[in-house]
Amino acid sequence: MHKADLKTYFNNHSSIGADMYNMLTDLFPINRSITGEGVRETLNYIKRFVPELSIHSIPTGSTVFDWKIPKEWIIRSAYIEDKSGKKILDIKENNLHLVGYSIPIDKWMSLKELNKFLHSLPDQPDAIPYITSYYEARWGFCLTELQRKRLKDIDYHVVIDSELKSGVLNYADIVIPGRSKKEVMLSTYICHPSMANNELSGPVVATMLIKWLLSLKNRFYTYRVIFIPETIGSIAYLSEHLEHLKDYVVAGYNISCVGDDKSFSFLPSRDGKTLSDRAALHALKYIDPNFKTYTWLDRGSDERQYCAPGIDLPISSIMRSKYGEYPEYHTSLDDLSFVTAGGLLGGFEAIQKAIKIIERNKVYKTRIKCEPQLGRRGLYPTLSIKKQTEHVKIMMDFLSYCDGKSDLLAISELIEQEFETIVPFVERLLNYSIIEELVDE
Amino acid sequence: MHKADLKTYFNNHSSIGADMYNMLTDLFPINRSITGEGVRETLNYIKRFVPELSIHSIPTGSTVFDWKIPKEWIIRSAYIEDKSGKKILDIKENNLHLVGYSIPIDKWMSLKELNKFLHSLPDQPDAIPYITSYYEARWGFCLTELQRKRLKDIDYHVVIDSELKSGVLNYADIVIPGRSKKEVMLSTYICHPSMANNELSGPVVATMLIKWLLSLKNRFYTYRVIFIPETIGSIAYLSEHLEHLKDYVVAGYNISCVGDDKSFSFLPSRDGKTLSDRAALHALKYIDPNFKTYTWLDRGSDERQYCAPGIDLPISSIMRSKYGEYPEYHTSLDDLSFVTAGGLLGGFEAIQKAIKIIERNKVYKTRIKCEPQLGRRGLYPTLSIKKQTEHVKIMMDFLSYCDGKSDLLAISELIEQEFETIVPFVERLLNYSIIEELVDE
Amino acid sequence: MHKADLKTYFNNHSSIGADMYNMLTDLFPINRSITGEGVRETLNYIKRFVPELSIHSIPTGSTVFDWKIPKEWIIRSAYIEDKSGKKILDIKENNLHLVGYSIPIDKWMSLKELNKFLHSLPDQPDAIPYITSYYEARWGFCLTELQRKRLKDIDYHVVIDSELKSGVLNYADIVIPGRSKKEVMLSTYICHPSMANNELSGPVVATMLIKWLLSLKNRFYTYRVIFIPETIGSIAYLSEHLEHLKDYVVAGYNISCVGDDKSFSFLPSRDGKTLSDRAALHALKYIDPNFKTYTWLDRGSDERQYCAPGIDLPISSIMRSKYGEYPEYHTSLDDLSFVTAGGLLGGFEAIQKAIKIIERNKVYKTRIKCEPQLGRRGLYPTLSIKKQTEHVKIMMDFLSYCDGKSDLLAISELIEQEFETIVPFVERLLNYSIIEELVDE
Repeated sequence: MHKADLKTYFNNHSSIGADMYNMLTDLFPINRSITGEGVRETLNYIKRFVPELSIHSIPTGSTVFDWKIPKEWIIRSAYIEDKSGKKILDIKENNLHLVGYSIPIDKWMSLKELNKFLHSLPDQPDAIPYITSYYEARWGFCLTELQRKRLKDIDYHVVIDSELKSGVLNYADIVIPGRSKKEVMLSTYICHPSMANNELSGPVVATMLIKWLLSLKNRFYTYRVIFIPETIGSIAYLSEHLEHLKDYVVAGYNISCVGDDKSFSFLPSRDGKTLSDRAALHALKYIDPNFKTYTWLDRGSDERQYCAPGIDLPISSIMRSKYGEYPEYHTSLDDLSFVTAGGLLGGFEAIQKAIKIIERNKVYKTRIKCEPQLGRRGLYPTLSIKKQTEHVKIMMDFLSYCDGKSDLLAISELIEQEFETIVPFVERLLNYSIIEELVDE
Repeated sequence: MHKADLKTYFNNHSSIGADMYNMLTDLFPINRSITGEGVRETLNYIKRFVPELSIHSIPTGSTVFDWKIPKEWIIRSAYIEDKSGKKILDIKENNLHLVGYSIPIDKWMSLKELNKFLHSLPDQPDAIPYITSYYEARWGFCLTELQRKRLKDIDYHVVIDSELKSGVLNYADIVIPGRSKKEVMLSTYICHPSMANNELSGPVVATMLIKWLLSLKNRFYTYRVIFIPETIGSIAYLSEHLEHLKDYVVAGYNISCVGDDKSFSFLPSRDGKTLSDRAALHALKYIDPNFKTYTWLDRGSDERQYCAPGIDLPISSIMRSKYGEYPEYHTSLDDLSFVTAGGLLGGFEAIQKAIKIIERNKVYKTRIKCEPQLGRRGLYPTLSIKKQTEHVKIMMDFLSYCDGKSDLLAISELIEQEFETIVPFVERLLNYSIIEELVDE
Repeated sequence: MHKADLKTYFNNHSSIGADMYNMLTDLFPINRSITGEGVRETLNYIKRFVPELSIHSIPTGSTVFDWKIPKEWIIRSAYIEDKSGKKILDIKENNLHLVGYSIPIDKWMSLKELNKFLHSLPDQPDAIPYITSYYEARWGFCLTELQRKRLKDIDYHVVIDSELKSGVLNYADIVIPGRSKKEVMLSTYICHPSMANNELSGPVVATMLIKWLLSLKNRFYTYRVIFIPETIGSIAYLSEHLEHLKDYVVAGYNISCVGDDKSFSFLPSRDGKTLSDRAALHALKYIDPNFKTYTWLDRGSDERQYCAPGIDLPISSIMRSKYGEYPEYHTSLDDLSFVTAGGLLGGFEAIQKAIKIIERNKVYKTRIKCEPQLGRRGLYPTLSIKKQTEHVKIMMDFLSYCDGKSDLLAISELIEQEFETIVPFVERLLNYSIIEELVDE
């Protein structure tokens, strides 16, 4: 789509949620992991929507800070069958049936032996757990507790046709330039197979945010959006870009768990008081007054790397149902029925709202001593009345804090008004040269 | 009165409240506005009590920051009569009947036409509203809803014998020197016609405070008290004195709504933590534990100018029923029955208490390492007892914070004692050279 | 005992409480005051347990800041008898019967006359009050209200064989060197006769703490423990050592009222945020979640001197039932039945816990950018699971704050874990060179 078309699309946005849900449905069956064909297939799918996306690769064995890029995992097939050739489990049915990064095996074994390699959840008998073993050679199968109970005391044929070989770790990024070299960074992860909220909602919402950012005609900030495998990917990305990111990133979000339609959640950066935190808290307060605020101790995604001591990027998270906090998390129940078009749209709009605040947040200073005479500019009623109208009050309250110290976001909190409510007043006062923007770069 | 007489007067103060109420009664009928004869008459009346008062004038058209001094308003008569010559409304009965700054008119018109120029309050059917139009040429009459309902569908003769001409804006001030050049500033406004709490209580209490300040034999601070029309007056005063005020004013109050006998109110400066704020909060806490604290968002008088960005004077407000918060506000119901001698006395004493704190607030430092041996100075019981007496505890608590950093007001909050309770201990410890005053200028 | 024996003793600590109770029982009958034979006898008794203790003396009349060292008080006998020679009161029965520092007298007097010199507590009819008059020449007797009511309207023979003469004020101290010259200071007082919680618990617990500190093979801090008479002793000690203490003392406690088995109490330093305050609050939170926090306004022991303005040592107090807050305080009811072996042990262990925190509190910084790969070091599970195990979470939380700014105690508060829970993780991470200690001296 051309930029003009995109603008129309986002202004009228009736299909944004449905479009995201469709992308998610397309991506769901792919067998992603931290490396391998599933990752490339996913990134290439996203590139169809965002041709400007760059896909990168880092060779197996490369050192990234304290870590080494692991071997690439190739998985061709994996199943368990009985003597009759009947498939008891098969990843063709659900990618979660196989422990991620399983080594190859082809062997007959008793149920007793097999049981050592099976994982199920007694408390959630109809859920297949999601389990991986990236950094130790292992194999295993995951199944529901109900499936497990149906297994008989016979011999089973276990087949995993996989390979761990020197290859690459893939990730993608895009840098969307703005007037300023300062950056807002969005990060999401593409390593989870066949789960919907955690995690396909993140890549899907991030893709839609890229399209929206590209549609903006006059961006202030430069935007960097990255699609990486969780943990090893963010560590690798930081090891390649740390100095640049430390110099330029002023705000950003880790995008994860933004697809269901339950209430909103917020997880702060380690610092807790960055522009990202402030913008997210303000946005969520006006979207969902009952949003749940977590603390740094509840962290669990790539903010662990972005906010690590010495890294200290201002990255927080706006989520819907947070990872680790909903029963379907990291099981086969986090499926296409757990997320909705409306849920994805809500996740998209919440992050969009925070970005709009960041984009528009400036410091202003009055150019006039004392209150300006707004009446002669048509900005103030000329007939005195017993009670000020609401919009005059907002404008006067804003002006009273317009001291060149507090930014617009701080003032909106001080005067208890939503950020976007104040913006038109700012524009008007700028037009009348009553205030001026303080420029800091 | 001589200073000695004044001292006796304030020490025995039985008639302070009644004297203020009498002044207020004398001033009530004068038709004040932001300019004109009513202002001069009011200032000259006050000058009879305070001969040292200087009355100033600024010519029409003078630029004061973003504003221009408006034309002077002369009002000779204003009424509405019917064909029979019967006066339906007349400002001889109540100054509020005329919209302030009304332009002249002499015209017969139908009720339908007249209605466009009438103002009443359906929710307060027996109240005449107070309405002005200083900066746009208009005319209008105000009346009670009951009066309005009695009007008939006939023609009325509308007469306003007024004039808007080049003239002056008047204000008055007095500077009462103290040992220090640092100033405490009190400001009140003299532009409201025929309303009692808001606003004649302010000028009347300010006048009494001047008399009290003049009676003090050994003032530390210099006191500046100004009588101005609201908004345009404070802007004009600041435009003439800004540099001086920024250099010298350390505290001060806007005096308004100090005449009724309901509970007390506090409105902070924009900063909220100035000496004025701290002294007012401490004073009010001990006068009326249930006083109501407003925020900067509730402001509405000349603190809007004094605390504007870049002006930043430390001006807060101690009030009784705050403007905008009582039903009688800005109507004919804010009359001589709404204020009382006791109410005015309470308003006077509250500001007086805050000024006494400011005047007496110093930083002290112990001259002795560890606790001094107070017993040998007769300041401590020589017989040990199970529980310290209250007054010894206050003295020891004060001394324990006497570190040259916290001022007396801060210590009184730390040790949970009223400021004036501590003062005698300070005097005693100074006399014994156990502590010394840190002088900062 | 040798150091090795001491180590065993403290590791197995079954008899620590009983041993302290026995010491307290031995010391109880001695007639202590701020000077005199009772003090020396007490210090010599303690020296039997701590031969390294230095006993010092300051001559009568020496100037210590604002005070002079008083005359030494010698008390040989004191009693009241009737004509039949029957002793009505005798300090042989209870040292508290005599007002401390009583001047000599040998006189017959009527009950009416005698009554002026008698002290009892009508509200606590079975308690002898503890009363002194160090700085004014007086005499007097203390008795229970019940005893007083039994007195008859006859003449009594009052005998006090005492003497106030030039002599010395005694105190003792010990400096236990550590790797650092920085000091932790413990102070307790030895001037109270025949009361158990306030005050023999302090010297007894301080003695046990010295033995424990001597048993530590690798102390970081230097420890200074002082045994002084209250008030005059701490003032004298400060006048002799102020510059050194200000340069070196980083934390410390006044040890008093640590012998009963009721709940714990905390009294902060004047500053309230010193390392001593933080360590005590952390320790108490994990010992007794219902411990009572007092404020500086509740102070009453030698912290009055240690935290005085210009002295500003970081001394707070960990107590059980605080002086002044329990009915038995400063009466004969604060006796050997009020304190227990368990109570003393609890007091000892609470201060020991705070000292262990201070001793072990350091600032660490991660040596690795982003999270380290703990799995390859065996510190992290290699199989992903739905929920982190508690001990992995603690380690990761600790690491996430390991930024070279927050000390270990601050981090333990941030991650809501007890200090001693974190220490083993710190050791492990140090061993793996994942973190390093920042050394500040």
